[in-house]
Amino acid sequence: MMPETAASGLEYLENRRREVDVLLDRYLPPEDRYPDRLHRAMRYSVLAGGKRIRPILALTAYESFGGSDPELINPVACSLELVHTYSLIHDDLPCMDDDDLRRGRLTNHKMFDEGTAVLAGDALHVLAFELIARADSARVVRELAAAIGTSGMLGGQMADVEAEGRDNSLDQILFIHTRKTGALIRASVRVGAILAGVDEATLERITGYGEKIGLAFQIIDDILDIEGDQEKLGKKVGSDCKNQKATYPGVTGMDRARRDADGLIDEAIAISEQFALKDNHFAMLARFIGQRDS
Amino acid sequence: MMPETAASGLEYLENRRREVDVLLDRYLPPEDRYPDRLHRAMRYSVLAGGKRIRPILALTAYESFGGSDPELINPVACSLELVHTYSLIHDDLPCMDDDDLRRGRLTNHKMFDEGTAVLAGDALHVLAFELIARADSARVVRELAAAIGTSGMLGGQMADVEAEGRDNSLDQILFIHTRKTGALIRASVRVGAILAGVDEATLERITGYGEKIGLAFQIIDDILDIEGDQEKLGKKVGSDCKNQKATYPGVTGMDRARRDADGLIDEAIAISEQFALKDNHFAMLARFIGQRDS
Repeated sequence: MMPETAASGLEYLENRRREVDVLLDRYLPPEDRYPDRLHRAMRYSVLAGGKRIRPILALTAYESFGGSDPELINPVACSLELVHTYSLIHDDLPCMDDDDLRRGRLTNHKMFDEGTAVLAGDALHVLAFELIARADSARVVRELAAAIGTSGMLGGQMADVEAEGRDNSLDQILFIHTRKTGALIRASVRVGAILAGVDEATLERITGYGEKIGLAFQIIDDILDIEGDQEKLGKKVGSDCKNQKATYPGVTGMDRARRDADGLIDEAIAISEQFALKDNHFAMLARFIGQRDS
Repeated sequence: MMPETAASGLEYLENRRREVDVLLDRYLPPEDRYPDRLHRAMRYSVLAGGKRIRPILALTAYESFGGSDPELINPVACSLELVHTYSLIHDDLPCMDDDDLRRGRLTNHKMFDEGTAVLAGDALHVLAFELIARADSARVVRELAAAIGTSGMLGGQMADVEAEGRDNSLDQILFIHTRKTGALIRASVRVGAILAGVDEATLERITGYGEKIGLAFQIIDDILDIEGDQEKLGKKVGSDCKNQKATYPGVTGMDRARRDADGLIDEAIAISEQFALKDNHFAMLARFIGQRDS
């Protein structure tokens, strides 16, 4: 039998995931509104399932630090998932990673067409900013923009493309991983905490938590691409290797990659314990990320 | 000899254009900062020249209505040009309009590669939001997002793609034009006026001005694609026809298109005269748009 805390942890995650799915459905433009093909393409990729880690992190940070207005945090939380999905759609394009499968379904440009996929990504990108601006805080808009611009996510994507087929050092891998995946996960925690009104010292500490789980998340992604279960992942395994991608285990070997990911998760949990929360959902989320198999 | 008002009008436009070019250069990430290839691609398309109509409209609206803080309006004005450029880069992609020339130079994907062009467009898109959020007004962020989302610019682009090769009514052309080009021009005027603190009645009136010059701008674009000078335009003429694009003169004929554009410019000037400004730069901008040959 599963230990009680682990079971209630999974229940928390599952409830939040469902809640986020309902919100995403509400915030996305309806399929029957013109331009309907574009709206269908947006909804197709966003509502294809997914763990909703980023919105859940924002909701958790906001509520853990005393925030209590769902109308304020909900659009902000969902904006993070829209950004994540836009980046996947553009990343999957033939001129980028050229992937056919994502979350067990055809990628956006395979289901629709390349032009529609470019526009659907653009449309999710701008909808994210429309949603995050609803919180009436230009600061959180700037947080998101900084996290996903050329010093953050896009810089990581470009570095990732350029690193293909090269011999990469661990420093280069860390550069890519902290930006390509890490920056948005870090920002997810930060915007929740900022909107809850935390002081700067708390913000610094929870930022450290976000950085550690963000890096662990991508290391585990690399590991799963090597030894994961294609069925569970919903995408081809081995594609990093095929595309000669720069990966963490590719440089450190599998054992150390696993050990480093575990170490980061432990450090993140230790940070979260400093807050002495009644329900430490941060620790549970960190454990979930550390143990995920899809 | 040119009448004095026309000459001083051109001087105003030229000075503002230079001012905007200096600002854009300052706000764009430097070429030598990593990821340098991406930064070069962003700068290549933004600094390729251009009339800078959208930033100039925002600056003009802000100052005409009493705004006096350049630090507030400058990043906002430049954000509009970045959005415009991002939309051109993605629009020129092989999976969209497949254009090789833009402003007399190779399009972004021809100069770099398709993957870089997708990311450079994305990077300008997010930099626009980073810049506009500096004004510390979530309202203007929402204005921009609404103008360029699927109810605005992106909806117009999708409709434009879908209208290719079909028999289109004037209503359909108006739907496309008011969104694809009109919405961002309208928003340019509005954000300037909002940041200057105008009342709702003034905002309504200047919005009408923005709508009229926005539609006139696109009608003239269609006309120039038929009878413009390729050298001056810096792009191939006749591409709308080749791509079986939905154009205004294609439905109304050239004479009526010219007449309607002139009528819209006259109406815009009439609106601007209601404000009894000492220097009516709005009227001059409208005239410039009405007379442009590139």
